[in-house]
Amino acid sequence: MDELLNQLSDDAKDFWMPKKISRIPPPTAVEFYRDYVSKNIPVIITNAINHWPALQKWTDEYFDEAIGNEIVTVDVTPTGYGDAVLTLENKKTQVFVQPEERNMTFSKFLEIYHDKQFDGVPYLSHQNDSLREQFPQLVHDVDRVIDFSAEAFGNMPEAVNLWIGDDRAVSTMHKDHYENMYCVVRGLKHFILLPPSDVAFLHETEYPTTRYVHKSNVDQFDPSTLIQSKNPNWFIHMPPEGRETTPWIPVDPVAIDTDKFPKAKHIQPLEVVLEEGEMLYLPSLWYHRATQLCDTVSVNYWHDMEFDAKYVYFNFLHVTTTVHGGHNGIFIFNSMASAKLYETMVSYKSSFTPPKPVEQVWNFSPPVHPRILKHQILRKVPPTSNTPIPTIAVPGARKVVEAPKTMPSYQSKVGLLELRRQVEERLAQDRNEDLQGRTEWWKQQ
Amino acid sequence: MDELLNQLSDDAKDFWMPKKISRIPPPTAVEFYRDYVSKNIPVIITNAINHWPALQKWTDEYFDEAIGNEIVTVDVTPTGYGDAVLTLENKKTQVFVQPEERNMTFSKFLEIYHDKQFDGVPYLSHQNDSLREQFPQLVHDVDRVIDFSAEAFGNMPEAVNLWIGDDRAVSTMHKDHYENMYCVVRGLKHFILLPPSDVAFLHETEYPTTRYVHKSNVDQFDPSTLIQSKNPNWFIHMPPEGRETTPWIPVDPVAIDTDKFPKAKHIQPLEVVLEEGEMLYLPSLWYHRATQLCDTVSVNYWHDMEFDAKYVYFNFLHVTTTVHGGHNGIFIFNSMASAKLYETMVSYKSSFTPPKPVEQVWNFSPPVHPRILKHQILRKVPPTSNTPIPTIAVPGARKVVEAPKTMPSYQSKVGLLELRRQVEERLAQDRNEDLQGRTEWWKQQ
Repeated sequence: MDELLNQLSDDAKDFWMPKKISRIPPPTAVEFYRDYVSKNIPVIITNAINHWPALQKWTDEYFDEAIGNEIVTVDVTPTGYGDAVLTLENKKTQVFVQPEERNMTFSKFLEIYHDKQFDGVPYLSHQNDSLREQFPQLVHDVDRVIDFSAEAFGNMPEAVNLWIGDDRAVSTMHKDHYENMYCVVRGLKHFILLPPSDVAFLHETEYPTTRYVHKSNVDQFDPSTLIQSKNPNWFIHMPPEGRETTPWIPVDPVAIDTDKFPKAKHIQPLEVVLEEGEMLYLPSLWYHRATQLCDTVSVNYWHDMEFDAKYVYFNFLHVTTTVHGGHNGIFIFNSMASAKLYETMVSYKSSFTPPKPVEQVWNFSPPVHPRILKHQILRKVPPTSNTPIPTIAVPGARKVVEAPKTMPSYQSKVGLLELRRQVEERLAQDRNEDLQGRTEWWKQQ
Repeated sequence: MDELLNQLSDDAKDFWMPKKISRIPPPTAVEFYRDYVSKNIPVIITNAINHWPALQKWTDEYFDEAIGNEIVTVDVTPTGYGDAVLTLENKKTQVFVQPEERNMTFSKFLEIYHDKQFDGVPYLSHQNDSLREQFPQLVHDVDRVIDFSAEAFGNMPEAVNLWIGDDRAVSTMHKDHYENMYCVVRGLKHFILLPPSDVAFLHETEYPTTRYVHKSNVDQFDPSTLIQSKNPNWFIHMPPEGRETTPWIPVDPVAIDTDKFPKAKHIQPLEVVLEEGEMLYLPSLWYHRATQLCDTVSVNYWHDMEFDAKYVYFNFLHVTTTVHGGHNGIFIFNSMASAKLYETMVSYKSSFTPPKPVEQVWNFSPPVHPRILKHQILRKVPPTSNTPIPTIAVPGARKVVEAPKTMPSYQSKVGLLELRRQVEERLAQDRNEDLQGRTEWWKQQ
């Protein structure tokens, strides 16, 4: 296996990864598609957004005046790391922890963002099509779409998001199933990038999904679902419906622990600092760690990716090289390691509530292309060779499955997660006995 | 593993393979690149070569007059199957057998081609840039290049070949490391196609490389290197330098033996019949079986393929799912099965001569891009997980290796094979002790 991984690593460096990320002037749609999108290679585009009013207008004063009273969702964490792997106090249990989400006025966000005494790191990074959904006053300050990219991708953006944060806030290594045009309006954005084939070296693992809660908000939760974090002011919420797990990358490319993650020795990260007025094409499925080097404002456009030959190969590589413990949002103990983890977790927090049986939520219309549903399931649930799960694929390879009535009109990350949840619950219903068995297991805990 | 292969097969059908191969009018270069080349999807182009003089001119009478006295290389076999896996008389040993190559005038070829009493199946299928090299009188009857395809591939043809054969001649399932534009001038060409990811299901195996010899030509060979085939008039020549092996596909998609080749149950071949004036885009690395349904004349253009993300993934899938017994043109017995095969072979033909130590042939200039050399080695020699061969990769991933002085000016199949041989011999020299060990092994046989 080691020889295989060596070859894979060499091949990716020889045939795929650029030695460094180029800076180019705005390409034509054809050049962009041919040299970057089709080849799945990142590139920085300069002088493409110089005409945006945002570059002149978007000062804190302007924001305060234009949208100061608008309600905005802010991600807050004690450490700056939201969507990250966190080791709990017992030093054994690891969880995937999401940021606390707080709704407040934009003025309030600006206040806490600049208040060094504020308890926590605020990051405006809610990826729910935030620019178009939450700040319609700002949309005319940027392009509705990056023309050459939309023409190359063959579709309009699924989501356009606003990002405001500084060097305290970090998005840990992950990938998105989107083509991404990331534009810096103010400040300096720092990315570390790895090609999709490095999935083989990143030790992706399933972690129980949890969320930060500040002490000021604990009254909103059943105390039995909270664990204190290392910071006395911050708690970890493990939801009572706690069947959800999240596959995540524990390797941090700025401090690779090759004793703990030996395969990570193969990675050779590409680093890039985006300056004001620059745009990064971040190709679909590329792994990335992102932060800011100072107070930074950005806008990104997510476009649907193509599910093509590369995607077929990626899935194979992913499931061949990754051991997964969970699917369906329900733990399946296919390895002693993950069972052990969960036992520790349960003993650590014995008040954990078993999940309720899932409800009827599958009532789909209008039709959605099955590849979207399938992709959602695959993203969450790659079956592994030692746990045959024949029903995990959408039944009938070419059968059209209908979408939920409640399906969101855009498929942002949030919308997709909801869609995936519904798809997974439907699949769980389809194998009733299976779910029953697992519900029994939970009841016994 | 079976679950993995199921998923791979489903994914390829859902996300990659067309349900059937489309017929389209000539596309623009951009359309062609975007919809077919980049996606690695075959398509038939109609009305693209209607203006070729060849369509009117290329009768047997015209050939006889224009090139009747030219010397041409003709592939001849007893069965019609050249470049095929053949089971020897003892019913145990299988070899890869190439056609006998005979040089004759074109008039002589036409004579034996139409003579039903002739002992053997003649097939004009020599892929050495034959149209441009052997028949300069004909090149103006066709386009020098298919414009939209050259623009999409970004290069000029490496080789343009002439094919003349009928329903007796078959090219068994194989792939080429080329983009291929295949044009029918007269008759009906029949293809069966499978996507590159089906490498996982095709039971590729290394066979000793042999060649047919008709009894009329046996006086040119050392009798101890010949075995009689099932047909008393035809022999199999096993060269005394017989260290060469060829990886080939034993599965015939028109008669799949799933008892013998269980993984082949996953394949779902696409079938196409090309009519006069039609052109098939046969994408790089697609597996294909080809024959004719009647007397058929064709011209094909081979273009260098792109070594990109898809190629990285393909290599991983190839080495992960295929067991290989040989590399360097020298057997390495990494599985009992292939050792057994070779033992049988040696006992069957005890006069087999051990190979001589390789000679100095590595004296390279001018430089060749290492990816080409590497690709050559990979095509022949994918290292497997249970035989670590650290020196098999071109030493120093980004080091420029120089090309042999004798490197052919075009890289047709023939030229590439020669280049590969030289690269392999150099690598063998680099690990002298290794070669020594194997030479010892041979001497003991």
